[in-house]
Amino acid sequence: MSRLPADSVGLVTPQRHTFTEPLSLACGKQLPRYELVYETYGELNASASNAVLICHALSGHHHAAGYHSIDERKPGWWDNCIGPGKAIDTNRFFVVSLNNLGGCHGSTGPSSIDPATGKSYGASFPVLTVEDWVHSQARLADVLGVQQWAAVVGGSLGGMQALQWAISYPERIRHCVAIATAPKLSAQNIAFNEVARQAIITDPDFHNGDYAAFGVIPKRGLMLARMVGHITYLSDDSMGAKFGRDLRSDQLNYDLTSVEFEVESYLRYQGQEFSGRFDANTYLLMTKALDYFDPAGAHGGDLARTLAGIKARCLVMSFTTDWRFSPERSRELVDGLLAARKDVSYLEIEAAQGHDAFLLPIPRYIEALSGYMNRIEVSQ
Amino acid sequence: MSRLPADSVGLVTPQRHTFTEPLSLACGKQLPRYELVYETYGELNASASNAVLICHALSGHHHAAGYHSIDERKPGWWDNCIGPGKAIDTNRFFVVSLNNLGGCHGSTGPSSIDPATGKSYGASFPVLTVEDWVHSQARLADVLGVQQWAAVVGGSLGGMQALQWAISYPERIRHCVAIATAPKLSAQNIAFNEVARQAIITDPDFHNGDYAAFGVIPKRGLMLARMVGHITYLSDDSMGAKFGRDLRSDQLNYDLTSVEFEVESYLRYQGQEFSGRFDANTYLLMTKALDYFDPAGAHGGDLARTLAGIKARCLVMSFTTDWRFSPERSRELVDGLLAARKDVSYLEIEAAQGHDAFLLPIPRYIEALSGYMNRIEVSQ
Repeated sequence: MSRLPADSVGLVTPQRHTFTEPLSLACGKQLPRYELVYETYGELNASASNAVLICHALSGHHHAAGYHSIDERKPGWWDNCIGPGKAIDTNRFFVVSLNNLGGCHGSTGPSSIDPATGKSYGASFPVLTVEDWVHSQARLADVLGVQQWAAVVGGSLGGMQALQWAISYPERIRHCVAIATAPKLSAQNIAFNEVARQAIITDPDFHNGDYAAFGVIPKRGLMLARMVGHITYLSDDSMGAKFGRDLRSDQLNYDLTSVEFEVESYLRYQGQEFSGRFDANTYLLMTKALDYFDPAGAHGGDLARTLAGIKARCLVMSFTTDWRFSPERSRELVDGLLAARKDVSYLEIEAAQGHDAFLLPIPRYIEALSGYMNRIEVSQ
Repeated sequence: MSRLPADSVGLVTPQRHTFTEPLSLACGKQLPRYELVYETYGELNASASNAVLICHALSGHHHAAGYHSIDERKPGWWDNCIGPGKAIDTNRFFVVSLNNLGGCHGSTGPSSIDPATGKSYGASFPVLTVEDWVHSQARLADVLGVQQWAAVVGGSLGGMQALQWAISYPERIRHCVAIATAPKLSAQNIAFNEVARQAIITDPDFHNGDYAAFGVIPKRGLMLARMVGHITYLSDDSMGAKFGRDLRSDQLNYDLTSVEFEVESYLRYQGQEFSGRFDANTYLLMTKALDYFDPAGAHGGDLARTLAGIKARCLVMSFTTDWRFSPERSRELVDGLLAARKDVSYLEIEAAQGHDAFLLPIPRYIEALSGYMNRIEVSQ
């Protein structure tokens, strides 16, 4: 494009920090050193009271807003929410967005080179949990001079991180915004993740996770994982509205393997495109982090007790047609917060788009988020 | 077991008929000859007015009731509904259950030997539709001396066959019992089928459908197809009740590829077990038949017009937690039948088991089916 939109944060340059203090992980292992790549939008104020952390979901990354170059076709993944005058207003807030540890967009992950061996970690990269991420993010906050986040905000797996922040670091977060998420996965959620994992693991090009050493990637497995994931992000209604039973051509082919319907073609494309840009081990790791997330597990399943130490005010939002993390799952979280006598606002947004809604510019959703964020107090 | 249950149809022997008149198919091809394997339970009465056809679903077959041997561990797949004194009472009815054309349990299908080549059909086997099946079933009815079925009964894909019978052969069916089914697939339904197909097709052992020539089977693909299918047969609630977040062992393994939760183990087992006993081309064929089914398509989408010629009385049943073919989809069918001024009864059964409910002995369901079947008039 010839110039960037006026309400964009504009050109952004990812930054990188190397952490040399070992990080102890839930799995019992340690990462001796690691890098995190992140972006910031807006300015940290003098009292460092206006910092907002954005946590990404399964396939997300640090590039949440703005453009990496004038030629970039699409802005960051949450550009419709982050920018000057937008719901997360960069005129007010200093916004931080990172690629999580274990990711494949620049932070240390399975596809990174292990300095100990000179080869990529592959299968030897440790499994991470949401708690591990929050600890690594706390160290990033230290580096940035942020003692306390004005808010930690995230959807889906990102919402779990926001919640874990409120639990793990009650003094370091004033507002927790958890969107389209759940206090833990259901058996069905885990089952869908397991299908995705099995697709990857049984791909002959997976080589027990050390595919990089063989110069291949388990493309078929990743494609299938994305296809099944993608179905769970959309609602039955939105798929119906978008594709219905529309055919690819005028006539049916009547064979076992070719595409007949537009929805098949769309899914194949989504799967293939994804399989060329995402690391298979990272995909496994992200789904495992989702599965493991269960903060109440350490308190005998008592969510209210788990949330007892929270000091943050909470905003929980869900979407009516989201069946991956349905409104019912958000209400579990809200009920837990209420039982723990916490300050929580809950909004169920009428939206046809399923789980994907949390990424979309749905007016009532954006207005609600904007209203909440604008009321967050920020000293100078 | 030492003896068979008293309410069982007892020992049954599958029968087989070879059809030598070519069958013209919706895809434009012909099958010059084919065999159907079937079982019958009860006796055809003198007026041949008591015959009931059972149509099977995606992975079903002809063995619907009774035992093949005294040592058989499990009876036929719908034994809880078919037998003396049961909902489909073999003291009153002559019940016929076949393996559909294209199947892999004895009827001619992709894994059968093509007499023209002496090798298995594999990828050369023609794609079939629900209409093709109904025509092949009509020929089986002729062979059995059944001019008119007292009822055609089926769940899921079987329900589509029952409906197609009422449309294609209005004079040959008095009652149509369509359970847990839909007048056509939604985009989401097709999308799940496409994931299953892609899992099979992209398995390196698929060899474009001619895997038999290579002495292999695409086990990985079939396993994944079954896993994803299985999730859609169960409700979120029933998976939660059955597995919740129960762990396989006392401690988490914290690695990317091993099983942590019971539900993962269950799904892997289901997938692996299935992949050893079901033919991959048949699986593709069954999913394609589901996708293609859209009787109203030929009438500009006007379901009432499509159903205008039906003479059968219809019973439509759905289950509250079935999200593969939800009650809403059954109501579409009922609305179409009502708009066409047909005689239709509809019952939505409260059941936690999702789509699988149609196979289970849920008291209200069995009572309703039994009540309906018992009121079907049968002359001597």
